[in-house]
Amino acid sequence: MPRIPQRTVERFFRYCQFLHSKVEAGSEFVFSHELAAAVGVSPEQVRRDFMNFRQVKGTPQRGYPVKEFMAALYAHLESSSLTKMVLVGVGNLGKAILSYFLRRRPNLSIVAAFDLDPEKADRIYAGCRVHHTGQLEKVVAREKVAVGVITVPASSAQEAADALVRAGVKGIVNFAPVQLKVPRGVFLEQLDITLSIEKVAYFARKIRTKEQ
Amino acid sequence: MPRIPQRTVERFFRYCQFLHSKVEAGSEFVFSHELAAAVGVSPEQVRRDFMNFRQVKGTPQRGYPVKEFMAALYAHLESSSLTKMVLVGVGNLGKAILSYFLRRRPNLSIVAAFDLDPEKADRIYAGCRVHHTGQLEKVVAREKVAVGVITVPASSAQEAADALVRAGVKGIVNFAPVQLKVPRGVFLEQLDITLSIEKVAYFARKIRTKEQ
Repeated sequence: MPRIPQRTVERFFRYCQFLHSKVEAGSEFVFSHELAAAVGVSPEQVRRDFMNFRQVKGTPQRGYPVKEFMAALYAHLESSSLTKMVLVGVGNLGKAILSYFLRRRPNLSIVAAFDLDPEKADRIYAGCRVHHTGQLEKVVAREKVAVGVITVPASSAQEAADALVRAGVKGIVNFAPVQLKVPRGVFLEQLDITLSIEKVAYFARKIRTKEQ
Repeated sequence: MPRIPQRTVERFFRYCQFLHSKVEAGSEFVFSHELAAAVGVSPEQVRRDFMNFRQVKGTPQRGYPVKEFMAALYAHLESSSLTKMVLVGVGNLGKAILSYFLRRRPNLSIVAAFDLDPEKADRIYAGCRVHHTGQLEKVVAREKVAVGVITVPASSAQEAADALVRAGVKGIVNFAPVQLKVPRGVFLEQLDITLSIEKVAYFARKIRTKEQ
């Protein structure tokens, strides 16, 4: 299969997200214009994306069958097999992420968590065993973990990333407010919550000032 | 002052972040190449950005004075005055964000939080009073809140956004996995943690498959 660009992957996951909500609401069919509005893209974009899923037959009256479309999307995203993840740093944010993944993602599982605090080690949080960070490389290598989620403070984030990479992960999601360095062949996503909030505050102030 | 593009604002906040860490480490000076490496941009980009701060004088031997540079950046970003924010949805993620902002951001303050759960209302969490969501519009309007942070489930996120907009906020940070609609003149940032993790898992799987 040809390489799908990052933006397309994001969009496809957003489609999945919306289709999930349709299933939960009891809907069996979905229109392309609904999908476009829900995901915030143009109807042209949706139609271009649909070219990848010609096997899913819709009708102008009812739209596309939701479940069949979701199955096609997931097959395309190859997420039918289990992807193992670990989380490093069981603070407030780490706990929030553990709780979320406990319930909702059958094919994406956090198999272990790590923390430097001996008080947190060897406990279960949100169904996930917490180990001391000293165990990280051993557990990650043994379990063939693909993805590491970093929720430690900025000062220890690079160290966590280095250990994850040595143990063989191929993707890192970093929530620490610091730019990490990882070797080629490891996919890195930086998610800086504070930075995003500061940016919004900046533009909100701008809008305020202009209106006054 | 001319409008600064979003990417520049983000980069400037990243500079601030790195300079903070320099101050904490006791450093008085910083080199532009250090800044470039830390923030993950080219040295050329840093030099172009520096054109905005000609009043900060550095030397090739010592680099730039950290505190003076930070002051100039913050003045440029106009974040010296207090920006009031509220948070809607005091679940795990909401609590993580409240705890973070309690300690670290003097000019960016979460002045109130809201939750539908009567058990959570009228309590203090991480130094922040939690009100019932029914009070949202009243409190936000009275306190002249500029930014709303949404950490409710997807099904009630649009409702929360509508109430925030009616009460006068000009910026929204949405963590709910759903694309919100806001009127022009309100700055919206979508921060979908699950989506980001799913995307990283996708690319990590790809890299694995290729290597095998």
